[in-house]
Amino acid sequence: MKTVKASIIGFGSIGQGVARVLLMKKDYLEKEGIDIKVVAIADSKGAVIDENGLDLEKCLDMKAEKGTIAEKKMTGAEVIEQVDHDLVIEVSPTDVITGGAGLLNMQTAFEKGLDVVTSNKGPLTLKFKELNELADKNVCDFRYEATVGGAMPIINLTKEVMAGNEIASIKGIFNGTCNYILTRMLEEKSSYSEILTEAVDLGIAETDPTYDVEGIDAAGKIVILANTVFGMNKTINDVDRTGITQITYEALEICSKNGKTIKLIGEVKKNGSLTVSPRLVPIGHPLSVSGTLNVASIQTDLAGEITVTGRGAGSIETASAILSDIISIYKEY
Amino acid sequence: MKTVKASIIGFGSIGQGVARVLLMKKDYLEKEGIDIKVVAIADSKGAVIDENGLDLEKCLDMKAEKGTIAEKKMTGAEVIEQVDHDLVIEVSPTDVITGGAGLLNMQTAFEKGLDVVTSNKGPLTLKFKELNELADKNVCDFRYEATVGGAMPIINLTKEVMAGNEIASIKGIFNGTCNYILTRMLEEKSSYSEILTEAVDLGIAETDPTYDVEGIDAAGKIVILANTVFGMNKTINDVDRTGITQITYEALEICSKNGKTIKLIGEVKKNGSLTVSPRLVPIGHPLSVSGTLNVASIQTDLAGEITVTGRGAGSIETASAILSDIISIYKEY
Repeated sequence: MKTVKASIIGFGSIGQGVARVLLMKKDYLEKEGIDIKVVAIADSKGAVIDENGLDLEKCLDMKAEKGTIAEKKMTGAEVIEQVDHDLVIEVSPTDVITGGAGLLNMQTAFEKGLDVVTSNKGPLTLKFKELNELADKNVCDFRYEATVGGAMPIINLTKEVMAGNEIASIKGIFNGTCNYILTRMLEEKSSYSEILTEAVDLGIAETDPTYDVEGIDAAGKIVILANTVFGMNKTINDVDRTGITQITYEALEICSKNGKTIKLIGEVKKNGSLTVSPRLVPIGHPLSVSGTLNVASIQTDLAGEITVTGRGAGSIETASAILSDIISIYKEY
Repeated sequence: MKTVKASIIGFGSIGQGVARVLLMKKDYLEKEGIDIKVVAIADSKGAVIDENGLDLEKCLDMKAEKGTIAEKKMTGAEVIEQVDHDLVIEVSPTDVITGGAGLLNMQTAFEKGLDVVTSNKGPLTLKFKELNELADKNVCDFRYEATVGGAMPIINLTKEVMAGNEIASIKGIFNGTCNYILTRMLEEKSSYSEILTEAVDLGIAETDPTYDVEGIDAAGKIVILANTVFGMNKTINDVDRTGITQITYEALEICSKNGKTIKLIGEVKKNGSLTVSPRLVPIGHPLSVSGTLNVASIQTDLAGEITVTGRGAGSIETASAILSDIISIYKEY
């Protein structure tokens, strides 16, 4: 049995999902020879630390009751720096403009020689190469399946399962909010603004939906795929981006009558082109999925087009991708 | 560099596809530290052997010119038995009733301590447990991604990428011929028999289409998934099976008007139920893919529903799955 001391940095929806999944899968992990001992959790107010392992049930209860697990006033980076552990589960809020606290957290972890598993796109869309080089230099594992499409296993599918194939491009729907809005506009014969209001009411869209509807979120994921799968060194500024705010019900209806639908498609090609824009997709094509789903289609030289669909958001779904990354690092083969 | 001496047993469409893919990917494989040297090829007429490695270009040319590569009158099993090598690429014709020559070929390989990679469903639908036990006993690798859905990477996705998830069921479209017929019936407002004739003309259906349209092929794949993913010990006789021959254009049209489509869905549930039958699928659902595509949807406890779509047939596509299996066995980590 390998004991892995871990910190959870960020204890919002995803951080709590990770704690729940670690509780649910304790026996499973032990069967795989992995004992994950969470020795520290940090949220925006501070941290709780127990080098013998925290009681995750109690931490979840405390978060629910008090809104924070903070017992000490410490930042995530201070926890990473000061607590003796092996793995940082970095699930602090995403900021694609500055990288947010996540960037400092990851840098601090690698400089200390810790492995990092994350769902946080921000640092990866800004400093992909630097972070990977820092991880390599310090012989750290760095995994981020959860950053692209939540539970949709696009990165590991491309890296592991498609071995032997040369990849020409990856395209897909990388934002569930936009997919929901476009799906519902046609179903309800409604305008963009009417369905946006519905999506905000349901918690599917933020009150300020810019990040989703202008394609910024999708662009961040395309950058991570470009850098991971094609070894590029792109940032979010390299993406040619158009959102969905100009799409009308009438346009969707005309397309529908012609057996097509409009989806916000992100695409990276091996020639270096990165785009996010509304595009026509034939109904019945694997990319024509409805609702909040994410989908990615990989164009390969041998296997042809392979498409994978999954839930792009949700705390347990995202934690599932984090768990698969943890297992792939620590499983004994 | 690890040199792997291999035989290709069966040199029809898929065997030739394997030879082409090995030629195309020679440099790639060398970069991964793998040198595949094909020392024997067998087809129904006999075999060609060169312990220093065959020239695959010449073998493909000879097959195209003469219809056979046979220089010696030997069966596949005799080649496996008598030639010094490490890996059997078993791609002889599928026979789900008796297992065909493939069954003997695999048994012979394992008894001699050779690894086997195959696209041949027959032996696996009949003797799954026995073959896996024989492989384990002789410390042989046994991989068969290509048996289910050609290039669609369902087995390796389930085993590797979905780590940590408990799988409740897998369902999908596992036969491209049936999917083609159902798609075209609606598009052309035509009867089953009219579109079947078209499919036979195009080479998408066999002259005797029973194996496809009665769901036998799909049932074989469901058996392999049941045994591989759920550790069951099922055979093709355990599948509750209905084909597509009774589906009318009128039924498809009524469904279509209600936002649904009819697909031949194979499903295995963890409670042991194995079925193949026509079922309603909502348009826009990830399973509602058109044409000859295959698709599989995995219901998991954490990640929710993950769906993968790909080409279920084609010699290069199937050879791609064989290649990914070969890499996963011999790649140095």
